[in-house]
Amino acid sequence: MASDANACEGFRFAGACGGIKKKGGLDLGLIAADAPASAAAVFTQNRVKAAPVRVSQAVMRASRGRVRGVVVNSGNANACTGARGLADAKKMGRLAAQAIDARPDEILVASTGVIGQPLPMDKLDAAIASAGVSLYEEGFGAFAEAIMTTDRRPKTARSIVRIGRRNVTLLGCTKGAGMIAPNMATTLTFIVTDAGLAPGELDRAVRAAVLPTYNAIAVDGDTSTNDMLAVLASGVGAPIAAAERARFTDALTELCMDLATQLMGDGEGVHHVVTIDVRGAPSDGAARAIARRIATSPLVKTAIAGADPNWGRILCAIGNAGVAVRPDRIDVALDDVPVAERGMAAPKLDEKRASAVMTRPAYTIAIDLHGGRGAARFLACDLSHEYVSINADYRS
Amino acid sequence: MASDANACEGFRFAGACGGIKKKGGLDLGLIAADAPASAAAVFTQNRVKAAPVRVSQAVMRASRGRVRGVVVNSGNANACTGARGLADAKKMGRLAAQAIDARPDEILVASTGVIGQPLPMDKLDAAIASAGVSLYEEGFGAFAEAIMTTDRRPKTARSIVRIGRRNVTLLGCTKGAGMIAPNMATTLTFIVTDAGLAPGELDRAVRAAVLPTYNAIAVDGDTSTNDMLAVLASGVGAPIAAAERARFTDALTELCMDLATQLMGDGEGVHHVVTIDVRGAPSDGAARAIARRIATSPLVKTAIAGADPNWGRILCAIGNAGVAVRPDRIDVALDDVPVAERGMAAPKLDEKRASAVMTRPAYTIAIDLHGGRGAARFLACDLSHEYVSINADYRS
Repeated sequence: MASDANACEGFRFAGACGGIKKKGGLDLGLIAADAPASAAAVFTQNRVKAAPVRVSQAVMRASRGRVRGVVVNSGNANACTGARGLADAKKMGRLAAQAIDARPDEILVASTGVIGQPLPMDKLDAAIASAGVSLYEEGFGAFAEAIMTTDRRPKTARSIVRIGRRNVTLLGCTKGAGMIAPNMATTLTFIVTDAGLAPGELDRAVRAAVLPTYNAIAVDGDTSTNDMLAVLASGVGAPIAAAERARFTDALTELCMDLATQLMGDGEGVHHVVTIDVRGAPSDGAARAIARRIATSPLVKTAIAGADPNWGRILCAIGNAGVAVRPDRIDVALDDVPVAERGMAAPKLDEKRASAVMTRPAYTIAIDLHGGRGAARFLACDLSHEYVSINADYRS
Repeated sequence: MASDANACEGFRFAGACGGIKKKGGLDLGLIAADAPASAAAVFTQNRVKAAPVRVSQAVMRASRGRVRGVVVNSGNANACTGARGLADAKKMGRLAAQAIDARPDEILVASTGVIGQPLPMDKLDAAIASAGVSLYEEGFGAFAEAIMTTDRRPKTARSIVRIGRRNVTLLGCTKGAGMIAPNMATTLTFIVTDAGLAPGELDRAVRAAVLPTYNAIAVDGDTSTNDMLAVLASGVGAPIAAAERARFTDALTELCMDLATQLMGDGEGVHHVVTIDVRGAPSDGAARAIARRIATSPLVKTAIAGADPNWGRILCAIGNAGVAVRPDRIDVALDDVPVAERGMAAPKLDEKRASAVMTRPAYTIAIDLHGGRGAARFLACDLSHEYVSINADYRS
């Protein structure tokens, strides 16, 4: 069994420098499965889908969830690039297939970066060839670095869980750092595992794992054209018996939560990762709608930035979620400090203590609506000056 | 006929200093109709409604659209203040009724400012009494100043239109400047006219006027707990015949557009007021959804702040609106500079010219979806450092 932190049995990885990113560095990532691996993926729900998303969706259908590899470039999203972009994305898949001796319809293709510019195919061609000859078992760190754009650091997570009588390895990486919203896999994320599951079983596990993790985070509420989360299972390690699937799903969910939390912490201009914990809603869906509305309210996000326990803005956001609530029943607490009770200022509201909670890098805004059993959690962050700077000057 | 720019026949106005606003200045506004006026109003759709909104909604029902006056304070929203807040809002109405010799159920009540703190009723009592003795015909400017919070300047508009054989005066004021979103009257706005219309006729005119104006602007996408737009018609000037109602509605719409545009220009941290002009959509509703999504996208708004003609973000926002669109048909132009055609970069895209358009204080992002006859217009603005500063430090 591969014991290195950057390895997972049945896979090899590479990162290469293609000169695609303006600022240089690794910008081409390649994953190769030694044999066809079970694959499951979720894609952006944006109606404007980048060419690689459309190609990968076709690959998932054509291969019936059995793939040999993943090729990703950063620095250019290959989105809004028309027929040429689609041809380029297909060619990326063909070049990667050649490099690892597979068929093009067994290769998932992903891109991330600036929208609306054609891919520099000569550079990509050379980079994919270079990655092809530098694949190695412990190469996941280089792959994770190659998919970064405005990310400040690579974000990886690994877990080894005992399932049945075998250890199962899960190894994942994710990239952000803006245009991050719920309602999709949001952002590029790749996870490999040596577990053995049929594609359909893996698909169910992925959908269950994504709902409370990648679909419950928001940096800025914008869902990108290029989002993709893909999981490849080599089956070299442990076959997962029917009775053990729930345990695998739990492990996958935990890994996704680890990655999603790292993603938020590295969000553009983010200083605080805040858990929005809603309970007492009429339904889980209503709780999610409320948590999402709070997490994407510019006024709540600037209050988080200013460490201002302005609970009125939280109530205002709750009222804007389109859910029937009884305002006079709502309690709000910041970690262990109650700030609102029954829709009014908490009787002994200690603004200084409440503000002190908000200086923490991570804390929870807990809301009880006292109106049912629905609950949901969401990760939110601050809207800071740095977010504005990063995004006002992104292309200059 | 009252010819002063701050007058409208049948009404008197006042602004008073109550010491309710921390920074001082006028913070209590009063409008008195000499006789019961037709009234129509729209209120926030936020489920968390401030006490004055609930009181004014009850007044509109009880009076059947015949009111004698409006009382407004700034500096305190009287929102999330429970039973005490409701009693305080009712008392505000009673005090104003006493001051102008009317019944409490003929007085509209409004508040704006910080959420979650009880109204200082002793100060309000004195301020209303003071306003009551300083009412005068040319007092609209003082009233407009008294309803301001973070607004940098009072925002008023006046028009005199010939309807039938008479001149009709419309006189309005509005306040912002954050927590401004579509899907409601959004913000406090008061308009008086000497036109003569029955309450039901006025109500239809108001709803028609609000849709393309106050319901089509967004500073930050947050709908406040206190929004209200009310129109009072004294009927002292010209009775509006059935055949002339459309003309009155047009005049009212134009006045609302003037006020809404001023509101956007004075939005928190706003440097650019951008018209989002969507056409070629499957329906007007679809066009509105797309225009709204563009107007509230943080990534589009930061691109506006940075004068970055990043049309890819505009396409991304279009794709996020939940409307079935054909990305490969979408054209985008900044004023007269095409930036995207058929979903790709415009063939001869001149980035410098496009960026130069975006340095203008006002310009248009024109989108043609080439997918139908639906159209909509929306006013958007930039997301700037000042917005973050104003809202991170609002209460400190």
